[in-house]
Amino acid sequence: MRFEGIFAALTTPFASDGSVALDRLGENIARYNRTHLRGYVVVGSTGESVLLGPEEIDRIWGTAREFAAPGKLLIAGAGVDSTNETIARARRAAELGYDAVLIKTPHYFKPLLTPAALERHYTAIADASPVPVLIYSIPQYTGIAITADLVARLAEHPNIVGIKESSGNVQLVSEIIHLSPPGFSVLTGSSGTLLYALLMGAAGGILALACFLPEAAVELYEAARAGDVARASRLQFTLLEASRKIAGELGPTGVKYAMDCVGYYGGNPRAPLLPLSDEQKRTVEAVLAESMARQKADQLGVAG
Amino acid sequence: MRFEGIFAALTTPFASDGSVALDRLGENIARYNRTHLRGYVVVGSTGESVLLGPEEIDRIWGTAREFAAPGKLLIAGAGVDSTNETIARARRAAELGYDAVLIKTPHYFKPLLTPAALERHYTAIADASPVPVLIYSIPQYTGIAITADLVARLAEHPNIVGIKESSGNVQLVSEIIHLSPPGFSVLTGSSGTLLYALLMGAAGGILALACFLPEAAVELYEAARAGDVARASRLQFTLLEASRKIAGELGPTGVKYAMDCVGYYGGNPRAPLLPLSDEQKRTVEAVLAESMARQKADQLGVAG
Amino acid sequence: MRFEGIFAALTTPFASDGSVALDRLGENIARYNRTHLRGYVVVGSTGESVLLGPEEIDRIWGTAREFAAPGKLLIAGAGVDSTNETIARARRAAELGYDAVLIKTPHYFKPLLTPAALERHYTAIADASPVPVLIYSIPQYTGIAITADLVARLAEHPNIVGIKESSGNVQLVSEIIHLSPPGFSVLTGSSGTLLYALLMGAAGGILALACFLPEAAVELYEAARAGDVARASRLQFTLLEASRKIAGELGPTGVKYAMDCVGYYGGNPRAPLLPLSDEQKRTVEAVLAESMARQKADQLGVAG
Amino acid sequence: MRFEGIFAALTTPFASDGSVALDRLGENIARYNRTHLRGYVVVGSTGESVLLGPEEIDRIWGTAREFAAPGKLLIAGAGVDSTNETIARARRAAELGYDAVLIKTPHYFKPLLTPAALERHYTAIADASPVPVLIYSIPQYTGIAITADLVARLAEHPNIVGIKESSGNVQLVSEIIHLSPPGFSVLTGSSGTLLYALLMGAAGGILALACFLPEAAVELYEAARAGDVARASRLQFTLLEASRKIAGELGPTGVKYAMDCVGYYGGNPRAPLLPLSDEQKRTVEAVLAESMARQKADQLGVAG
Repeated sequence: MRFEGIFAALTTPFASDGSVALDRLGENIARYNRTHLRGYVVVGSTGESVLLGPEEIDRIWGTAREFAAPGKLLIAGAGVDSTNETIARARRAAELGYDAVLIKTPHYFKPLLTPAALERHYTAIADASPVPVLIYSIPQYTGIAITADLVARLAEHPNIVGIKESSGNVQLVSEIIHLSPPGFSVLTGSSGTLLYALLMGAAGGILALACFLPEAAVELYEAARAGDVARASRLQFTLLEASRKIAGELGPTGVKYAMDCVGYYGGNPRAPLLPLSDEQKRTVEAVLAESMARQKADQLGVAG
Repeated sequence: MRFEGIFAALTTPFASDGSVALDRLGENIARYNRTHLRGYVVVGSTGESVLLGPEEIDRIWGTAREFAAPGKLLIAGAGVDSTNETIARARRAAELGYDAVLIKTPHYFKPLLTPAALERHYTAIADASPVPVLIYSIPQYTGIAITADLVARLAEHPNIVGIKESSGNVQLVSEIIHLSPPGFSVLTGSSGTLLYALLMGAAGGILALACFLPEAAVELYEAARAGDVARASRLQFTLLEASRKIAGELGPTGVKYAMDCVGYYGGNPRAPLLPLSDEQKRTVEAVLAESMARQKADQLGVAG
Repeated sequence: MRFEGIFAALTTPFASDGSVALDRLGENIARYNRTHLRGYVVVGSTGESVLLGPEEIDRIWGTAREFAAPGKLLIAGAGVDSTNETIARARRAAELGYDAVLIKTPHYFKPLLTPAALERHYTAIADASPVPVLIYSIPQYTGIAITADLVARLAEHPNIVGIKESSGNVQLVSEIIHLSPPGFSVLTGSSGTLLYALLMGAAGGILALACFLPEAAVELYEAARAGDVARASRLQFTLLEASRKIAGELGPTGVKYAMDCVGYYGGNPRAPLLPLSDEQKRTVEAVLAESMARQKADQLGVAG
Repeated sequence: MRFEGIFAALTTPFASDGSVALDRLGENIARYNRTHLRGYVVVGSTGESVLLGPEEIDRIWGTAREFAAPGKLLIAGAGVDSTNETIARARRAAELGYDAVLIKTPHYFKPLLTPAALERHYTAIADASPVPVLIYSIPQYTGIAITADLVARLAEHPNIVGIKESSGNVQLVSEIIHLSPPGFSVLTGSSGTLLYALLMGAAGGILALACFLPEAAVELYEAARAGDVARASRLQFTLLEASRKIAGELGPTGVKYAMDCVGYYGGNPRAPLLPLSDEQKRTVEAVLAESMARQKADQLGVAG
């Protein structure tokens, strides 16, 4: 099994009392099941993983497993700073029937997390995990940037099958693809550079943007795969501002409000994340409106 | 009660099977009780807080409470990214008889953790915590630098009584002291700049270095308090390399090995932290030897 | 006139006594005239502009003008920190018959060089320059990153006709293209992301790599223009390591040695730049050999 | 001759037509001659060196030489990126009778300016300069941070006699003092941390703040030298905001306006530096007023 295509990095819905709204999560997934998304990441950064307790995570993983349609791949966000706790989480995800785990770089003790320390961390997890491991690098949140050389070494492990690279550094993605073996899945986490990653040979993307514009992301992916670069470029253009101003600058909070705007359940994030200000809400609405107008124009153009 | 003097930021000892070695922790504390340390921080950064589970933390806090001598102040490292989980931990520490909680800035969602978000986080915790709150800023690990203006606003809350500032930026410490009310305890977490913080009016320090050189740190504090700046400067010199090369560059791993060298139980850190290489061990030994030779020379000079 | 295509960012050759080797410069240009390069940037970063005196620059500009074939566009690197001195240099370049000037962001007084200060700088220069102005942003050297919003505002000036963006940040290049008017020339300075910039609508590139692999860069450009993305992607792959390990990591020093390897005159840089070590020379040779082997394989594949 | 005490980093006055106002410079120096400043740095960062042409620099150096009182030490800011041009400027400063040259780290080609390259640069200059060399490190403008180890190696050169360290990193200043030989002059460029540098053994400071508060800086220096740390600490407090909000945040522009406020000739900076906004002017005025009120209160307290 290779991880390719567009995956949504799911948000975690909360009820008004602050508890996890599992029913809302189920409803969202039921709707995503009708899209062409390849699968879901559950409890990643966009899922506010660092704001959830272990029991909550268990229930979220279980609910997602229950509601996901049979053909959708399920990836559990299971990485924390501790190597052993990460292994425990990977085992739990495997028990629940997940197809893979996504393991964020540990990051708290920055000066000590050398390439050697990261290599030992990932190797220990891959040795112990019953399901395949995807590396996850997101330096804008962690302050730790994984190198192409280290990815190439880790890719030799039979249970490390891919990477989600979220920095948006296209040259780094190119180098990783260049240095890693053919079956290794390089997925971008940066919707603003999705097309370029795909053209360079990336297998797809794991995208927060796919929570509120799932079909647009899939269309771009399919146009690129079909070699229709002109159309893919136009689609990439339609996603640029949504990528930068919603998923990038406003993070899970912005993604949730954008979901509310297009008919999913978004809701508020957990503290210390603040709800959007009214001005930020207007920005999200304007960016979404422009993005959808461009998509519509593009479809008419193609039809016409 | 004001938090002043030198506090050790305790390490968490692990047994060879990786479990928390509560007995070793008790023995270390029994020895620290015989020093002039003012108290202990339990489960802070040096205590590898991010690598411990909630039940482990509970047992560590309980053991430290049990072994700490009556006069020693106890501060619980209780801050995590989630506001609500931090409140739950602060309540637990209070139940266990802790004197205060030390609350690290949340940090994962960096672009979203604006001063307004940090202000709401600390205010909510201070409102709910049964014991006083100390802010904790350590940008070299978190990537979040708290400003003097925000500290000044937070210092108006009756239950926010101080800050541990670990950046080593002396001008920032000066500004915080300048802007905060008289009773507010500004403690430095940077042993390499302890003297300057004290001269500027800091109330003391919470130091990883105090795990292996407790009396040297206390002597510097007392010399500065007594106005003997010449002697305090010489003592600051003796701590410079230990601060930079052990506590700074090698973090908890270096501190633990230095503890082993001077008769405490240090042991290994948890993965993903790597044990020291042989070369790193030689560095720690050389720095300690030079530091202690300088202290001895200084004492003889004073005596002679 | 629109600035599009591939431009070489020329090096400045020095004789063994350290003086500018104008004859060597002329010989290099005579050879470049036989390639499909669109033109040359003279005295830019790769030309070690900050290590040259005003009289030297004058002679270099004159020599390049003399040797450049009639159809080649000539762009003078004319930006320094002072607004007035930059204007004086732009006027001199115009007198010498240059087609445009490339104006680096001022950068010494970083905290003071706000968008408002940059806007006034570029506007004053564009008002005074007899020839069109290209903005030049290279944050890895200057520490100043220009924003897409500022570029969009500057692009409204009739005498500001384009930008060389060298950060390698593809999303930023996309945003600049998105926000600037149709005739505005967005040129990338990053050979490792040339294809992606072109696909997004960039007009071309100003590349240090084009000093030693001019035809490879042009082929990539033409394949992208012709819509042959598969071939362009393969060519981009062949340039990846040369971009990163020669032009990126070794700067003008590496570019000059690579030129020596392929038959141009490179020579040594000026102090404080150090000549390459033997190990660095071996790296350049290996990267060049692999790059050329891949290009050959690609051509045979196409032919076969 | 050892470089110790407080030096003013002089501004360069401009007339309303933008030319250098040599007469104003002479008048300012005549007034500074009546203070207890130890000497002057002419054409440093605060002197807007990067915005001046070689002939202008010559005239400024000559004027300062002419007006400086016999006992004042004169230091020429002579460092540019090119090693050879720096040597030429050092020779010119020596011809004009300067006591030393201050040589900023080269900085444009950041990734190439390794410690080895910096070492060769400074050694070549020190070999050739007829007058002693002071190293100058100001990473907030250059992006290049010199290490204590490199300073220690350079300090072995008989013609490298000191350093101006402007980062404000007190621990780094301590390490430099710790590692360099006894006669080596460590001068801070950071007025907000002057006291701590002095307590650690620094020889003094080269300060932009001394342009508008010369006697306050000298008083702090003398109190620290006399061992009156309590008084020195109070004086350091009075300078804190002036250091941060004028010299730090507003650079030469703020320093010039503060000079205008206290009776020197400041005037406007050269473009691309913008004149202060009205709001920034009010900030400078308020900071100065508070600083002088505190100094007065301190003097009355001492007198009473």
